[in-house]
Amino acid sequence: MANWEQIDTYAKQWIKEAGERLKKSFEEKLNIETKTNPNDLVTNMDKETEKFFLDKITETFPGHRILGEEGIGQAVEDLSGIVWIIDPIDGTMNFIHMQRNFAISIGVYEHGVGHIGLVYDVVHDELYHARKGYGAFMNDKELPHLEQAKVSETILSLNATWVTENRRIDPSVLGPLVRDVRGTRSYGSAALELAFVAAGRLDAYITMRLAPWDFAGGTVIIEEVGGEVTDLYGKKLDYLKGGTVFVSKPGLHEEISKKYLKEL
Amino acid sequence: MANWEQIDTYAKQWIKEAGERLKKSFEEKLNIETKTNPNDLVTNMDKETEKFFLDKITETFPGHRILGEEGIGQAVEDLSGIVWIIDPIDGTMNFIHMQRNFAISIGVYEHGVGHIGLVYDVVHDELYHARKGYGAFMNDKELPHLEQAKVSETILSLNATWVTENRRIDPSVLGPLVRDVRGTRSYGSAALELAFVAAGRLDAYITMRLAPWDFAGGTVIIEEVGGEVTDLYGKKLDYLKGGTVFVSKPGLHEEISKKYLKEL
Repeated sequence: MANWEQIDTYAKQWIKEAGERLKKSFEEKLNIETKTNPNDLVTNMDKETEKFFLDKITETFPGHRILGEEGIGQAVEDLSGIVWIIDPIDGTMNFIHMQRNFAISIGVYEHGVGHIGLVYDVVHDELYHARKGYGAFMNDKELPHLEQAKVSETILSLNATWVTENRRIDPSVLGPLVRDVRGTRSYGSAALELAFVAAGRLDAYITMRLAPWDFAGGTVIIEEVGGEVTDLYGKKLDYLKGGTVFVSKPGLHEEISKKYLKEL
Repeated sequence: MANWEQIDTYAKQWIKEAGERLKKSFEEKLNIETKTNPNDLVTNMDKETEKFFLDKITETFPGHRILGEEGIGQAVEDLSGIVWIIDPIDGTMNFIHMQRNFAISIGVYEHGVGHIGLVYDVVHDELYHARKGYGAFMNDKELPHLEQAKVSETILSLNATWVTENRRIDPSVLGPLVRDVRGTRSYGSAALELAFVAAGRLDAYITMRLAPWDFAGGTVIIEEVGGEVTDLYGKKLDYLKGGTVFVSKPGLHEEISKKYLKEL
């Protein structure tokens, strides 16, 4: 049986160490290359950080597998056994342009069930973490259970893209929700936005396309404080292929689904 | 003649002191009341902080006037003489919900010309500051002159509200811009978003309605690093009545105006 306490201890130690390396990298010239399109920037540091985790995990837990954004490990085509789902830098554009508002995200899953979730806001040294069944924390502070919320008092994280012409959703679907909530935000890092929902700072977060490494850490933390986690159609998330993501405080999830998403 | 060095020294001292008081207030229960509508939250701390500045300024500079969000000083109906334009908490909703991502904003103007701009990100202890003609800084670090930018590489700060049905602008005007930029963000504090433009972290920021206290500090800092500051129609900002705001890196301002705003 997996020793989750041991895995958790190592995961936290490595994520802090990786964060330290990222902070140092600001001083060096970032060697930026463009992946499939100009919106998809990748830096040396993405790859180096993923390699760092790959080496540590392979050495310490030879039976575990790694599903990561940079795909430098072996191909992962199912979620059997223990899989570390890792985004070495979530919010690469923020990392490059802002040197802040990015995170390292790690989810450790066994047969598709999340046991450990970590989201590390490197620059502000805030580690959001949860172990399934053991509570969620920001650094040493336990995050309280999320309270019920309603649309009229909601701060919703949603990128403006999803209410303009785009390839994934009719802009008229989410427009009325944007008008009815108290306010909208967009931080440019899904992992951080999920952590903010877990910490009660945002009430909901909706996005039309994420990869599993963007959300695998954050959703464990949200579920641990009683938040609701589905895709936009109310289905379980796909931790292998990704897709749409809709997380929120309890109550709010149902209200938004019924009032704004019923035509989907 | 005004001793700007002295005014600057006091302004920085007071903004830090006010920030310290705000941080302490998190521990106390925030006594929230609702102003004109539920979107317009005001806390005790808004009023207390503005009163703090009012007392300090009146005592030290009896000839100066104060234009502030809470309007607790005398009415200011013109910008003659020296006027401190103050937002005691810019991003009140963030202050309440997040206990972060808000700022204290101060602009000190003489006959309508900005001489001092301060934006203090209290929680992260980052003070963005500029004196006209003396450079702009984040804490002790001088901010470099902004480089030319273009739309295809831009991170634009823009609230999703302005590309959905709203009372101020046809959503089809800014929609194409949202599609063409590299990414959009929205932080929920105009003062911080202006400071981020000054620091080169955001390339442009557009919003349809701000009060003078939201932008009077930030625009001094942006102009000091060579950024462009107008309303959405290319006109000078109104530091008495407020209105639309459009700030950006050089070059980008012209490209956006010509390609996306020419129908306005």
